[in-house]
Amino acid sequence: MSNNEVSTIPAASGERLAALRAELARQGLDGFLVPRADEHLGEYVPDRADRLRWLTGFSGSAGLAVVFAGRAAVFTDGRYVLQLAEQTDPALWERRHITDEPPAAWIAEHAAPGARIGYDPLLFSEEAIGRYADKGLSLVPVEANPLDAVWADQPAPPMAPALPHPLAFAGLDSARKREQVAAALVAERQAAAVVTDPASIAWLLNIRGDDVPFTPFALGFLIIHADAGCELFMAPQKVPEATRAWIGNAVSVQDRNAMPGALARLKGKRVRVDAAGSPAWFAQKLRAAGAEVVAGMDPCMLPKARKNEVERQGSRNAHARDAVAVCRFLRWMESAAGRQTEISAAEKLLALRGEVPLFRGESFPAISGSGPNGAIIHYRVSPETNRAIGENETYLIDSGAQYTDGTTDITRTVWTGPATPPDELRARVTRVLKGHIAIATLVFPKGVAGAHIDAFARAALWQVGLDYDHGTGHGVGSYLSVHEGPVSISRAARPVPIEAGMILSNEPGYYLPGAYGIRLENLLLATEAELPGALKPFLRFETLTWAPFDRRLIDTTLLTRAELDWIDDYHDQVRTVVGPHLDGQDCGWLEAVCAPLA
Amino acid sequence: MSNNEVSTIPAASGERLAALRAELARQGLDGFLVPRADEHLGEYVPDRADRLRWLTGFSGSAGLAVVFAGRAAVFTDGRYVLQLAEQTDPALWERRHITDEPPAAWIAEHAAPGARIGYDPLLFSEEAIGRYADKGLSLVPVEANPLDAVWADQPAPPMAPALPHPLAFAGLDSARKREQVAAALVAERQAAAVVTDPASIAWLLNIRGDDVPFTPFALGFLIIHADAGCELFMAPQKVPEATRAWIGNAVSVQDRNAMPGALARLKGKRVRVDAAGSPAWFAQKLRAAGAEVVAGMDPCMLPKARKNEVERQGSRNAHARDAVAVCRFLRWMESAAGRQTEISAAEKLLALRGEVPLFRGESFPAISGSGPNGAIIHYRVSPETNRAIGENETYLIDSGAQYTDGTTDITRTVWTGPATPPDELRARVTRVLKGHIAIATLVFPKGVAGAHIDAFARAALWQVGLDYDHGTGHGVGSYLSVHEGPVSISRAARPVPIEAGMILSNEPGYYLPGAYGIRLENLLLATEAELPGALKPFLRFETLTWAPFDRRLIDTTLLTRAELDWIDDYHDQVRTVVGPHLDGQDCGWLEAVCAPLA
Repeated sequence: MSNNEVSTIPAASGERLAALRAELARQGLDGFLVPRADEHLGEYVPDRADRLRWLTGFSGSAGLAVVFAGRAAVFTDGRYVLQLAEQTDPALWERRHITDEPPAAWIAEHAAPGARIGYDPLLFSEEAIGRYADKGLSLVPVEANPLDAVWADQPAPPMAPALPHPLAFAGLDSARKREQVAAALVAERQAAAVVTDPASIAWLLNIRGDDVPFTPFALGFLIIHADAGCELFMAPQKVPEATRAWIGNAVSVQDRNAMPGALARLKGKRVRVDAAGSPAWFAQKLRAAGAEVVAGMDPCMLPKARKNEVERQGSRNAHARDAVAVCRFLRWMESAAGRQTEISAAEKLLALRGEVPLFRGESFPAISGSGPNGAIIHYRVSPETNRAIGENETYLIDSGAQYTDGTTDITRTVWTGPATPPDELRARVTRVLKGHIAIATLVFPKGVAGAHIDAFARAALWQVGLDYDHGTGHGVGSYLSVHEGPVSISRAARPVPIEAGMILSNEPGYYLPGAYGIRLENLLLATEAELPGALKPFLRFETLTWAPFDRRLIDTTLLTRAELDWIDDYHDQVRTVVGPHLDGQDCGWLEAVCAPLA
Repeated sequence: MSNNEVSTIPAASGERLAALRAELARQGLDGFLVPRADEHLGEYVPDRADRLRWLTGFSGSAGLAVVFAGRAAVFTDGRYVLQLAEQTDPALWERRHITDEPPAAWIAEHAAPGARIGYDPLLFSEEAIGRYADKGLSLVPVEANPLDAVWADQPAPPMAPALPHPLAFAGLDSARKREQVAAALVAERQAAAVVTDPASIAWLLNIRGDDVPFTPFALGFLIIHADAGCELFMAPQKVPEATRAWIGNAVSVQDRNAMPGALARLKGKRVRVDAAGSPAWFAQKLRAAGAEVVAGMDPCMLPKARKNEVERQGSRNAHARDAVAVCRFLRWMESAAGRQTEISAAEKLLALRGEVPLFRGESFPAISGSGPNGAIIHYRVSPETNRAIGENETYLIDSGAQYTDGTTDITRTVWTGPATPPDELRARVTRVLKGHIAIATLVFPKGVAGAHIDAFARAALWQVGLDYDHGTGHGVGSYLSVHEGPVSISRAARPVPIEAGMILSNEPGYYLPGAYGIRLENLLLATEAELPGALKPFLRFETLTWAPFDRRLIDTTLLTRAELDWIDDYHDQVRTVVGPHLDGQDCGWLEAVCAPLA
């Protein structure tokens, strides 16, 4: 759920802003947009692409700077308003809330009529740029990013090797996947599709990499043709001989600078480009070359989201192993109050996961928040904010791991004791739990999307005027991104139907600023529901995550009989899955915390 | 829920089709589209506009004919497939399912390359025509409908007078409404908006009419300018002196044929037109005149849907009175088995409503279905289908009325007795009821749309593999259309947020073809929820409809304590609202059927 990144970029300065302004003047631009984005529009960007941080000092995972000759502003969302104020120099930067004061409106107000405002078309989707056009702004795509021209010591692109992801984990060979994607192109009379999401390439070619933190893919671009042949644009030194052999002859490996030529060769053809997920640069180059650009979803997105049987079983296995580390951690937490901090707790969990077979790293930076820090939804503990875990407060830990056979993501909220928690807290935890159970037990027909079921996770909170300000769930990859599209459980998202094989998080919460945060998260696997007599296909969720919910925080009087049964049954399964892998004392603890509530 | 119409058009024939083909040839057209639509794209059309029926014989409320020189087809949806087959001549017409074989695909298959296929731009929205363009078809708008040229005895337009709708019912004077709409145009820098929905005009000018069945509006068009001045295009003989005085000097009344001139006067201006709700003709004329067309919702839609305090109270009053007729009917139904038919029952309910003060007519044709006929979702009883109401079966009645102070719509499903109903039926009714209660008791924050809550009405059915094939609810007007936009409770609809003052139906169902149909419908008024401590505005539903649910069909073992309490509380209120207005025997009956279930 969080996504800052460890960076080596030195502190920002006024000199950088001045240098950029001089370069803009040289290029005849009156202004320029600097987003927090790389050429893949990904969540985690390599240092090389963290232009926003280099220029402004702001290190949040979402933001945009707008630079004019006379003024400049940085925009971010509610999560990062405080951080933005701390990290940027008010003498250089106006600081703005990106939804309250959208950049397009700010630009319209402050740009002179006819001003030439540039943007790097590799860092914006066509949809994103279209939103500026909707406000009557006409922006100018630049050929080369003027910021790069003045960033003397810009880090080199990462060069981690792309390595084979064995069939024992991938479940389906790349040739079959490429045929499947090509068939989808043929059905839409498209000659090719551009793929700019490295996770899609990782899935399609059954390769994994290590170019950015937390998500094990290799940065690159790809064109897949209707005959299932592929052109992979990736620095040749990143593709060792074994990987070349693994991906086979139907995939040519070319340097990234061969891309314009490859796009030009699509002249006169219908080419699919994802208007929301791919940089505008691709559609612009294709149109300039005389190709017909068809807006359509990245053709790997849906097949990647529908996990095959091997991936499903891999995820079950990964979760069962992850659960051992999580349960050992939760037991360890019982004596943390007064002795541990948010950082030492997160380190402990990481160390325990390090003992788990096939562990490859965290799937995102753990959110480890005690007491009031738990109320900061995207909290990232730092030495400055690190808080001692005290007695009689809540502790929220949202964390996940990458295993070769699957990606995990779990949140638990525990009471540090020794006193009994306050009734209000227990009531609110219980309402969050009711929402969690409502999603976990839902049965629904094919065609229903996450936007249609999100409210089930909230109804018990809504009933008493409470809510939480984030989506209920996101898609999760198979040893890939922990935040994977196109499906989510959120009213804000496009209503893409949930399908069998998709993995989604179920993480309702409640946050009382300055006091505590509650979030209860398991991952779910959508599976076919076998319902006698049903006249159409139905789906249900299989729970993948196994760890007890803190019974001290549950008010059983607020639960229905069916909800109580669900918890008791769930805890019983936790015992079955995890128990055999725990040592003596941990084992006894698990028995106690998983005993029936009723 | 149904919407056929009583028509006086004589039976269709091959001569008509031949005449149309000759006219198309004269006009140089290779084909022509004939939709079931009038110039307002409304649900009920005057006989003059029922071109589809005149041409094909098909009288369903949704359909489209495509006529080529050598072949012709009629398309309709699943509701009307049987009716289409019965009413059209297979020697003349291919009969097609409109979603399985969309007309655009059929045309693409059968039209010669470069064929000139005409359509009447007064009968299609830009969005609807755009869907043909998406399939690569380029259709030709005609200046005058060629079918009208060959329909010698086409009925004249209806000429019922437009009459004032008093402030005691409307609640807000027209000048204030016009100012409010004009302010919305100014906020979007629009000079004017075109309003083509007669219900919007009725709301804006506080007038009502009688041009089509079931919906009390006067057919016309309107342009509202940013200074709140209006041009109403309506035959002058439909606007009596008293109505002219009522609507005031800021509204000029012009004949319908003055419209092209009025649109031409908008040259150079930004004009809002509803791309989904208005005929394409308006945007085409405006663009031809050099106006800038801005796609946007009919500016009366949202304010009309947000009922003011007078309208809310009017609706409460109308429903309380309507409930007396409905309860008297339900009591009468207790002895209907073996003695009544679907038609005589519907007539009885209509007669009872006729005794209710301020009754103005039905709000739609009642659906009166016994036994298997109840499973036909849009069933319209006819002398041919009329079924005797038998013992030990279900009877479903979906009906509503127009009162000067409000519009009603209620469905009840009853058991005709005397035996105990089968367990499976009771279980299914109870699951439908659980869905009904889930919607009725929902509390939700502002911003939530019907698409986000529809699933609550279905979850109990889904759990056992059941569902129903229609939306859960539609908006309802205030002595206006019983199907009013823009809000509904449906996953298929655009997610327009529910707001306080909106009236929505809550009508989950279940249908077992050939056996029985279940639907339980009340109308709900969205109101502000007063929740102590809530940090944002929440809404809840106030129930408007008062009539008992058949207790014989409820399996209390499937209900939670909270659901049982809701029913008992609801029945208690029915007794309170209706009881004082019933006579002796009816009164005793009401006491019995409203007694606590628990």
